[in-house]
Amino acid sequence: MPAIANSPLYPIMHPERVAVIGASNNMLTMGTTILNNLLSLGFQGQVFPVHPKLNQVLGLKAYAHVGEIPVVPDLALVVVPTPIVPQVMRDCGAKGIRRTIIVSGGFREAGAEGRQREQELLAIAQQYGIRFIGPNCIGVVNPFHRFNTTMFHYNAAPNGFIGMASQSGSFITQMFSHLAKFGLGFSQGFSVGNQADIDLADCVEYLCACDRTKVIGLYIEGLTRADKFIRIAREVSKTKPIVAMYVGGTEAGRRAGESHSGALAGSDAIYEGVFRQCGILRASSIEELFDFCWALGTQPLMAGNRVAVFTNSGGPGAAAADAADRAGLKLPALSLPTRQKLRASVPHTGSLNNPIDLTFTRSFEDIMEHIPRILLEDEGLDGILMYFLIVVDNFKCLLGKADSSVFKTAAEYEEYILRLCRRLARLVQSYNKPLLGSSFLTRDEGFIRELEDLGVPILPSPERSARAMGALYRYSRMRQALIAGESKR
Amino acid sequence: MPAIANSPLYPIMHPERVAVIGASNNMLTMGTTILNNLLSLGFQGQVFPVHPKLNQVLGLKAYAHVGEIPVVPDLALVVVPTPIVPQVMRDCGAKGIRRTIIVSGGFREAGAEGRQREQELLAIAQQYGIRFIGPNCIGVVNPFHRFNTTMFHYNAAPNGFIGMASQSGSFITQMFSHLAKFGLGFSQGFSVGNQADIDLADCVEYLCACDRTKVIGLYIEGLTRADKFIRIAREVSKTKPIVAMYVGGTEAGRRAGESHSGALAGSDAIYEGVFRQCGILRASSIEELFDFCWALGTQPLMAGNRVAVFTNSGGPGAAAADAADRAGLKLPALSLPTRQKLRASVPHTGSLNNPIDLTFTRSFEDIMEHIPRILLEDEGLDGILMYFLIVVDNFKCLLGKADSSVFKTAAEYEEYILRLCRRLARLVQSYNKPLLGSSFLTRDEGFIRELEDLGVPILPSPERSARAMGALYRYSRMRQALIAGESKR
Repeated sequence: MPAIANSPLYPIMHPERVAVIGASNNMLTMGTTILNNLLSLGFQGQVFPVHPKLNQVLGLKAYAHVGEIPVVPDLALVVVPTPIVPQVMRDCGAKGIRRTIIVSGGFREAGAEGRQREQELLAIAQQYGIRFIGPNCIGVVNPFHRFNTTMFHYNAAPNGFIGMASQSGSFITQMFSHLAKFGLGFSQGFSVGNQADIDLADCVEYLCACDRTKVIGLYIEGLTRADKFIRIAREVSKTKPIVAMYVGGTEAGRRAGESHSGALAGSDAIYEGVFRQCGILRASSIEELFDFCWALGTQPLMAGNRVAVFTNSGGPGAAAADAADRAGLKLPALSLPTRQKLRASVPHTGSLNNPIDLTFTRSFEDIMEHIPRILLEDEGLDGILMYFLIVVDNFKCLLGKADSSVFKTAAEYEEYILRLCRRLARLVQSYNKPLLGSSFLTRDEGFIRELEDLGVPILPSPERSARAMGALYRYSRMRQALIAGESKR
Repeated sequence: MPAIANSPLYPIMHPERVAVIGASNNMLTMGTTILNNLLSLGFQGQVFPVHPKLNQVLGLKAYAHVGEIPVVPDLALVVVPTPIVPQVMRDCGAKGIRRTIIVSGGFREAGAEGRQREQELLAIAQQYGIRFIGPNCIGVVNPFHRFNTTMFHYNAAPNGFIGMASQSGSFITQMFSHLAKFGLGFSQGFSVGNQADIDLADCVEYLCACDRTKVIGLYIEGLTRADKFIRIAREVSKTKPIVAMYVGGTEAGRRAGESHSGALAGSDAIYEGVFRQCGILRASSIEELFDFCWALGTQPLMAGNRVAVFTNSGGPGAAAADAADRAGLKLPALSLPTRQKLRASVPHTGSLNNPIDLTFTRSFEDIMEHIPRILLEDEGLDGILMYFLIVVDNFKCLLGKADSSVFKTAAEYEEYILRLCRRLARLVQSYNKPLLGSSFLTRDEGFIRELEDLGVPILPSPERSARAMGALYRYSRMRQALIAGESKR
């Protein structure tokens, strides 16, 4: 793979001087929102609004024409009415700008006339040596460069590890708040739009070279240059996992994609074949895509498919077991030595079968340390699914009403639980084995937040943690096969 | 179906005098937590703690023995060590108590000795005419009676419409916070445990008679009395939808259920057959179960499977379309008259195909009123999937920086959006056609909360709204078939 600085995308993601063409002081226009977001994330470079009539835009000096900007911007954001996009591109080219993001729509996705207009764009770009993203996109986000050209505030984690390229801008921008629910974030995000020039494959290649990206997510309505995509993705999968959601496999999805991004979709069977060939994991929904990314971006690969389900609640344990089985995992009976070691930590009403079910909470040390350690040490297990239920609320409500020899205040109890979370996270890191948590509680609970921030994924349900573990196993196998295939040549 | 007051479950869900056997002042025991929760929901009846040594429990006068309680309780909660449960049941019987909830475990789920103990319980119950829930359960919740015998605070909606019976207590209690995420709640909830006496079928029969219950949710590890269940469920499905999650269909799920609730599971194929015969919808996860319940408990039935997807974001629209197709729905091309009516409300970059995609927000009135009205009026459509994206944050952030002729303050803008939400909810109610919303935003956003509280479900993703609509359609068809089958006899 080429070095990241050589990628045509590098200047787009790390610009120092940006022209914004189409922002104004009217708060209801897209250009204005984009400029405002660019500024509000704390972008450190120079920003040059271009507007034919205004002297100032959102407090910045504005220029009547790209040509009047006193320096050569390394990137232009183009958010102008469709008919004048070609002229703006020419102006950019004449100015010496070599990268643009074309947000404006009305091109290939809008019928014959639009297709012709898109051809015109390409010709202009070629003439001036411009590489561009779009048209019909909503740009990019690079939280590490405090760079966000989209219409949404970036409120997800500032140090995310998910690199995403999407044929839908929504599946970049509207994911900001979705990822924030789990303490996750993007390392880099691309809305590729019509992919007239830069396409998904270019993004995948770039994301592979990006050290901050641990896993690549793709939203696909239809591949435009399939050969190129397959060649690149197959190579990338050997070192970095790719998870894709593809919506063009049904009649309704295909038609929707066509009018949305002008994509050419193919049957599920064709795309399943492409994904298999490339070692790409397919997700059945956007939520699942990020579930999978969470597991793949934080956990080590799996040596096999044998998992233990550990729970203090029977139902969630059974639900995880059932979902794990359907996801291609096995729940072996635990070995005699492991059962013997576990016995001291499992109440008599509990179960030493797999799932290991405590049935109730007797000791938090058993739950957060002793039992996970025994399972992590067991060489007959390749991964652990752990259901989390620690209720701080109930305890708080009993304080002052009942006796406790252990804790006197809610703060004392909370601190105790957080300490155990830190011990669990350290413990897991000291083994090369995946552990995925799940809980119906959210990051509003301090202990969930602590675990997530320490790199222990807590999926929102036992079934989703099991499916994510299944994805981790499938990727481990596919990667092995890809690498083995290579060594045979 | 029998009247609700004749159900053996009625006194369990509406007691006036409750004995709590096994609570103490030690905050770490289950009995104490249960008593505390019972009190904290504001239960209006009398509560009598029974404890051999204490004079007071959580501030209430305690009795050394059930026999010493000055009245005859109509219900006893039994949370004592396994070996003394039979004697406690005898004491209850001798006192004249005719309903108990046995929380204690260590019965059928715990091997041969436990099975024998459970037989003993049954014999005692028969001797005294006691009907009971459990053992190995965590009781019931009836928010309308402010009655909660579980270990969790009930923090979901106080006026819920989902009646749930579950072989896992967790899928009652831990769902409180899950349902609260969506403004949902239980009408009635049962953890049935080992079902030694009262079983899932009894709960289904009761829930059918309960006016507050609009839809019935079941978590099943294995049916104990299948014939009875089928007979009752088939009858209930004619008037009230039932959604079930079944985990015993895989090897791992079967084993997990066995050690959890001692259930006898069967293959997926057998249960699929049972569910079809009964008109029960099967959910593939607990999250999906509640998604389906949300749609089925709030929306009218569907006359056919033709839906429109309406969005202002292309990707979520395509994802909804793809998922709808997979869920058995059709996205027909819109009729010419409908297209003509829509034209004024859809920007030129938008699409009048199905999905109807605005591509951006030009007018909130178009989104929240004009377009939904046109789609609701179209007789060629049986349901509407609507993706919601209204960003209040961006607007707030622009206030004071850019011009707006429309709103001066964030509060003004928010109130405007809430007014539109109320108009949309009223509009939908005036048609007999389901509308399911979706958004990646949560109830933390005021407009989502408003819509949900007015009965417009906002599922957490477009795919989940499409699958829920699919469930609504499948139930509409199954119900028709069940009723037609009856009229043929």
